[in-house]
Amino acid sequence: MNERVAAIIGGGVIGGGWAARFLLNGWDVRVFDPDPEARRKIGEVLDNARRSLPGLGDAPLPPEGRLSFHDTIADTAGGAAWIQESVPERLEVKHEVFAALQAACGENAVIGSSTSGFKPSELQQGAVRPGQIVVAHPFNPVYLLPLVELVGSAANSAAQIERAARLLTSLGMYPLHVKHEIEAHIADRLLEAVWREALWLVKDGIATTGEIDDAIRYGFGLRWAQMGLFETYRIAGGEAGMKHFMAQFGPTLALPWCRLTDVPEFTGELVDLIAGQSDAQSGARSIRELERIRDANLVAMMRALKGQGWGAGALLDAHDARLRAGTVLAATLDDLGDLSRPIPTLARLVPLDWTDYNGHMTESRYLDAFAQATDRFMELIGCDGAHIASGGSYFTAETHIRHVGEAHAGARIEIATEMLLGQGRKLHLFHSMYEGDRLLATGEHFLVHVSLQTRRPCAPSPRIETSMARIARARAGLALPDGAGSSIRAPG
Amino acid sequence: MNERVAAIIGGGVIGGGWAARFLLNGWDVRVFDPDPEARRKIGEVLDNARRSLPGLGDAPLPPEGRLSFHDTIADTAGGAAWIQESVPERLEVKHEVFAALQAACGENAVIGSSTSGFKPSELQQGAVRPGQIVVAHPFNPVYLLPLVELVGSAANSAAQIERAARLLTSLGMYPLHVKHEIEAHIADRLLEAVWREALWLVKDGIATTGEIDDAIRYGFGLRWAQMGLFETYRIAGGEAGMKHFMAQFGPTLALPWCRLTDVPEFTGELVDLIAGQSDAQSGARSIRELERIRDANLVAMMRALKGQGWGAGALLDAHDARLRAGTVLAATLDDLGDLSRPIPTLARLVPLDWTDYNGHMTESRYLDAFAQATDRFMELIGCDGAHIASGGSYFTAETHIRHVGEAHAGARIEIATEMLLGQGRKLHLFHSMYEGDRLLATGEHFLVHVSLQTRRPCAPSPRIETSMARIARARAGLALPDGAGSSIRAPG
Repeated sequence: MNERVAAIIGGGVIGGGWAARFLLNGWDVRVFDPDPEARRKIGEVLDNARRSLPGLGDAPLPPEGRLSFHDTIADTAGGAAWIQESVPERLEVKHEVFAALQAACGENAVIGSSTSGFKPSELQQGAVRPGQIVVAHPFNPVYLLPLVELVGSAANSAAQIERAARLLTSLGMYPLHVKHEIEAHIADRLLEAVWREALWLVKDGIATTGEIDDAIRYGFGLRWAQMGLFETYRIAGGEAGMKHFMAQFGPTLALPWCRLTDVPEFTGELVDLIAGQSDAQSGARSIRELERIRDANLVAMMRALKGQGWGAGALLDAHDARLRAGTVLAATLDDLGDLSRPIPTLARLVPLDWTDYNGHMTESRYLDAFAQATDRFMELIGCDGAHIASGGSYFTAETHIRHVGEAHAGARIEIATEMLLGQGRKLHLFHSMYEGDRLLATGEHFLVHVSLQTRRPCAPSPRIETSMARIARARAGLALPDGAGSSIRAPG
Repeated sequence: MNERVAAIIGGGVIGGGWAARFLLNGWDVRVFDPDPEARRKIGEVLDNARRSLPGLGDAPLPPEGRLSFHDTIADTAGGAAWIQESVPERLEVKHEVFAALQAACGENAVIGSSTSGFKPSELQQGAVRPGQIVVAHPFNPVYLLPLVELVGSAANSAAQIERAARLLTSLGMYPLHVKHEIEAHIADRLLEAVWREALWLVKDGIATTGEIDDAIRYGFGLRWAQMGLFETYRIAGGEAGMKHFMAQFGPTLALPWCRLTDVPEFTGELVDLIAGQSDAQSGARSIRELERIRDANLVAMMRALKGQGWGAGALLDAHDARLRAGTVLAATLDDLGDLSRPIPTLARLVPLDWTDYNGHMTESRYLDAFAQATDRFMELIGCDGAHIASGGSYFTAETHIRHVGEAHAGARIEIATEMLLGQGRKLHLFHSMYEGDRLLATGEHFLVHVSLQTRRPCAPSPRIETSMARIARARAGLALPDGAGSSIRAPG
């Protein structure tokens, strides 16, 4: 069994999303889907994923794996470490697929099902190795949203669940272990409750689909993107806490507000009503356009949460830390080898939210990238989180950026850093940003070590002084890089 | 009636949020609340609002209004243009309040009720001027979330609803006109559906409050913050569209998945179970801390959406445009007066998401602010949206930033811009950033006018050339500003 081979059974929007998630995290992906359109459909999902996922975090993903299409389930699943079933929601179809899979795959492979409705014990009926099958229910777009509901039955061992969770986590996903199987797991039960109530609102003529969407995205949708239901209500309870909130809100449960106790009849008129309103609301844009808008929004919001170290953004931080463990960037000065050479301090993809109305990476993001490179250099010489927590840090006093070429969303940029001076409180850095071997920009920075208490200059730690001295010795006698010390020529 | 005086009847979390929303948008606010703790409670909401709202958009809010507390409803409501009732959800209490209000207030004042449950026709029962009363149901935190459900009955004229909508819009809110009154309006019907189902999941031991929150915030919560329910599902339907999605999802409505058809009994055990799980999930942080985390997350996400021009971010853009119409920043060169003086190009608050681990505005945001000032200068000389759409724009070739002082979240920063050279393709700008009269930083920029087709330098429009020549003539013979043309001194 190959630890980084995934088999994708069924290649629709969900299967394609899984394929993209695995592929862009460095796995080889083998696809089985008898649909003659499968290659095109997966290709389109992959295009979206390649646009949005690689720049989502701040650490680069591993090189993309290989994608291949196969004619039989046996050929697809043989040797795979993870097999993901995303075929239509019909139990007898899923049972047939599992039988074919288990005849071909290794005993240690995980077979995950994307089912939104069936319980794992239902999926496992008649299986030769039921413990190999779990529910791994993802959310569209699978390549961006971290949530996977991971559900087992009594037939799954703790080790099997734990291994599945570890593999999903390595893909940057968040496996939510649902500890008691029920139909529709957790999220879809909440979604179905909303869907039913929304259908009533449209059917009864209270609101249009567009008005309902506005009621969500301008209000509680923003709350739920970062805190969910209970934490939000905990705050609403104020200082008196959750019990107080329950006492306030609880009694309304008995009021006859919702139409939930009844199911709207699913008639052709209802379908036409909703489809017509949806056309009026969103029809001016193609599905492809809406997908790209959605993905750009999700990237921007998840990166915003990353800046706050919260929610889905905290998950990105954790994934970055895992990815960095395996990158070209050195962990310490000792890993660098020849200290006379420019030091690699940044390798990242330009994320979707770094571009502007001119269609290229906007100027402040060059400084954002240079600042990330400076942070990395600081860590390398010993100005790390612990040093900052102890009350010392570097403040930038002066910056000079020269733009040489343009960069676009998705571009892989790398920064190499030269220390021109590192002595006492002073640190003078010169960053060069490249896309491949094309120079995009240089960033020259003069920094001063300060006390975070007094906000005044002070000497750095002996460790930092020693690190700077090592680099200075190695670079002694080297010429200044081209452009260092230059200025914008004043008109005269 | 004073057009910018609001009366707040009831000063809890919701009333306090309304007070903050009005006050920070320049209205005088008069509060009536017999609670002896009302001043402290409103003060705490105001602290949160002052921290987060003024920097949310890119245009500065007007100067804060005056806040006063009053002992009687009559004294509070007299002369107010907007009166907001946020008293407990008991109809007889609300009727008493409305009677007292209508005895004191002007006929043209809007009386908005924050009720989440009652219909406007219920609120209006027995009122002397029923058409004056509307539902204006906001969402916590009222000072950040734009949604207000605006609901009238047959007693309200179209002009009354329209006027209420206009006033709410002027506060940066989004009045969603609910055209048919029902109990709980729109959003709370959806919320109650989710709340009921979530209670079942906890009561049945399927998931904890923390797991349910994770199922929301790592999955559909992120989707709903930007697109809502129907637009999200439209995408899920793929190229085949909404009808296809309905055909797939529709039949599951008949499945017995949800527990919705029944109401969980609201026992002391259920309250204890949920309060206990909520303590385990969030109890390590105080409500005050959670509020600040929430607000920072909301600001970061809404600003991220602003960068995409979508959803709640598009609302911020519209509010900025309204605010800019009344600011100190000139609309055209002709409004500037003496062109020999530095030109005001930016006045804004430092938003919550612009600070870093050193506790101050992070370096790339200085360039972000300078770039906004450059954009503003470009607009003034005629390189506006229309010019960019016609295929010409300025690219920055070189930037030199000198940091003089620190800025913190909430600081009001202003930038004044000097044109050192503006001739042919060349534009050389020198920005000075101030907090009050304290210089924070200078930004010197050399820009080149380019063709967006060829990405090569080209001459700007005659209008731009003329504008630059006017400024150059006015500045002829002036000395260069201090620091212009300087460089980071190379170590030697």
